[in-house]
Amino acid sequence: MEKLQGGVTLAQGFMAASAEAGIKYSNRRDMALVYTEEPAVFAGTFTTNVVKAAPVQWDRNLLWEKKKVHAVVLNSGIANACTGQEGKDLNFFMAQAIADQMGILPDQVLTASTGVIGMQIPKEPVLKGAKLLKENLSQDIEAGHRAAQAIMTTDTVSKEAAASFKVGDQTVTLGGMSKGSGMIHPNMATMLSVTTTDAQIDQELLQELVRDVVSDTFNMISVDRDTSTNDTYLVLANGLSGVKIEKGTDAYEEFKEALMYVSQSLAMQMAADGEGATKLFETHVINAKNKANAKMLAKSVITSNLVKTAVYGSDANWGRILCALGYSGVNFDPEVIDLILHADGKQLVLVENGVATDYSEEYATELLSKDKVTIICDMKEGQASATAWGCDLTYDYVKINGDYRS
Amino acid sequence: MEKLQGGVTLAQGFMAASAEAGIKYSNRRDMALVYTEEPAVFAGTFTTNVVKAAPVQWDRNLLWEKKKVHAVVLNSGIANACTGQEGKDLNFFMAQAIADQMGILPDQVLTASTGVIGMQIPKEPVLKGAKLLKENLSQDIEAGHRAAQAIMTTDTVSKEAAASFKVGDQTVTLGGMSKGSGMIHPNMATMLSVTTTDAQIDQELLQELVRDVVSDTFNMISVDRDTSTNDTYLVLANGLSGVKIEKGTDAYEEFKEALMYVSQSLAMQMAADGEGATKLFETHVINAKNKANAKMLAKSVITSNLVKTAVYGSDANWGRILCALGYSGVNFDPEVIDLILHADGKQLVLVENGVATDYSEEYATELLSKDKVTIICDMKEGQASATAWGCDLTYDYVKINGDYRS
Repeated sequence: MEKLQGGVTLAQGFMAASAEAGIKYSNRRDMALVYTEEPAVFAGTFTTNVVKAAPVQWDRNLLWEKKKVHAVVLNSGIANACTGQEGKDLNFFMAQAIADQMGILPDQVLTASTGVIGMQIPKEPVLKGAKLLKENLSQDIEAGHRAAQAIMTTDTVSKEAAASFKVGDQTVTLGGMSKGSGMIHPNMATMLSVTTTDAQIDQELLQELVRDVVSDTFNMISVDRDTSTNDTYLVLANGLSGVKIEKGTDAYEEFKEALMYVSQSLAMQMAADGEGATKLFETHVINAKNKANAKMLAKSVITSNLVKTAVYGSDANWGRILCALGYSGVNFDPEVIDLILHADGKQLVLVENGVATDYSEEYATELLSKDKVTIICDMKEGQASATAWGCDLTYDYVKINGDYRS
Repeated sequence: MEKLQGGVTLAQGFMAASAEAGIKYSNRRDMALVYTEEPAVFAGTFTTNVVKAAPVQWDRNLLWEKKKVHAVVLNSGIANACTGQEGKDLNFFMAQAIADQMGILPDQVLTASTGVIGMQIPKEPVLKGAKLLKENLSQDIEAGHRAAQAIMTTDTVSKEAAASFKVGDQTVTLGGMSKGSGMIHPNMATMLSVTTTDAQIDQELLQELVRDVVSDTFNMISVDRDTSTNDTYLVLANGLSGVKIEKGTDAYEEFKEALMYVSQSLAMQMAADGEGATKLFETHVINAKNKANAKMLAKSVITSNLVKTAVYGSDANWGRILCALGYSGVNFDPEVIDLILHADGKQLVLVENGVATDYSEEYATELLSKDKVTIICDMKEGQASATAWGCDLTYDYVKINGDYRS
């Protein structure tokens, strides 16, 4: 597998566009389109929130019907959630607008929205945006990059990841983009994420892979424990590489590895760009009884407000980490646990067998001041491990969310 | 039932004391003692965290053995959690120090600690504190008040509540104190809470009442979703009023009402004094399918970081409230829900049947700026209701917890 720079336009046959539609924001791109002339099978996962935004309901139906699609249209600014029948109509209106421009059917267009809950999307900007999107469609790497920028809300950087691998002399490429910064919590992160690939793969197999990959990547990040109404992760495969992905083959393993890499990279980029975050905070649980326990333990640590504020303050308050493991819902023996701080290639044992070592607080603070901080929790009761990614909780999180709508 | 000013010294036969022991803090009271000459039955509930502090382990054993006790000794500054065998020994040392002063046995002394996790309590201050506590014991209302102050950590105000009721010409009195401001989350709030009463009541019945009352009061508050290692709620009954509390009597109903009042008052005082909080935030779920659902829904709203920051910003971001209901784990129809904002005796309907009304944002902001803000969630699917109490999430929460240990 080779890691690549770029996003959704790298795989053969995929184009992207972005536009200043003016749905809510002014003077910035707020609509994006991903398009493939060759119809694509798609797989996806969506929010588990009981309250599901109109585009989520739309996409789930298309997935249920196993439709082939040509396009994904995305907008930022307004989430089209909690908007009743009017919101559903507006969502259809958006799909229709793209379909009209591209000469396809509305049910060949996936939709995704992010932004304020409860507001209605205005029609005029959507029509204007759809027209601009068609005009701007391009398979340049830059077109993918601008699409990733157009779906940002409180994100401070756009997120892309891509990889390719060879099967004989044929190349399969995968490229993705994500947005997500606040209202992010496992199952799933509040995020929109689209990955395109030219692999040739059966829809069922793609869906199975997506589920596996999501549970170790997007579902292992958290910014604030709030699971949004709009979470959407879509993978489109148009088959143009000519490489067939089937179970039990080397190509399957390569494809899975590449999809895992793209998803994990996007997930980590989202955690690091958590609202107000100053650093990426990773928890690696090792030697847990089983995988499910390892995941619950790792997630409990990265979601603790008290741990997150301590990480912000570069304070090695390991007691809060033990405490967060303790209320995770997993039973364990606190008196055998080791906690190891890891950053910048260096490590420091904070706790051995449940009790503090005589570590240097100054050195701990130095390590905690790095951009990426990892806590290793050695449970010493089995062989399972899991990793979860979050960020620190800062003044800016409060600032960003204290008056988001204005 | 009559509501009273005062705390743990109001019930007959109970005395309290506080002392500057210097366990970790300087120039402030950091140890407290509640004492009854007449031995008391006691009931209690403790943290559900797998990691349990040494005093929690000690008290649970005494509860298990249904011991009668004479005293509760409490300290602030160091939590005596994650301290291994040395911590257990120090906890016994504290019980022994009080026992020696009072001429009782160590296993007639309950213990409770709050503060930094992982540090060891030094012995000298405990000996000094035990001596001072004996000297200062008093049944004055002020002695109870100073004891409530001595157990504060990041609390900004001390918490007391009391009530009495008459049975014929005899009076039963209950009085309690609590501390708790951060690391607070249902099951149970991170808190130490002691209530004394001169009721004459069987230990099993008292324990049953305590469980009932806790689930509607202390377990319905949250500051930050972090369930601590030290949560302890103790009720001591020495019987000196001469009034026997038995099931099926009026006295039983009166006692339950008074215990509920004292617990709820203490719980609300803790939520309002949440770390960094500027206001008390109450969620009242009505017409839910059943009580369990109502509780889950109410707790989900008050624990959402996004709702809490919006409340801080006095922003009527009702979409986040619907969203928090949606990921509570309870299934419901989002398209029938009403959300009503309530403050200062006035109310404003924000959402009707899942969609926003054309309410005035200015008026919503005015109501949200009050010291106590209530959101009523009408689920329209049954008759059960529940109330949960929390607070807003502010810059000061981050400040307080970014570097708590220094």
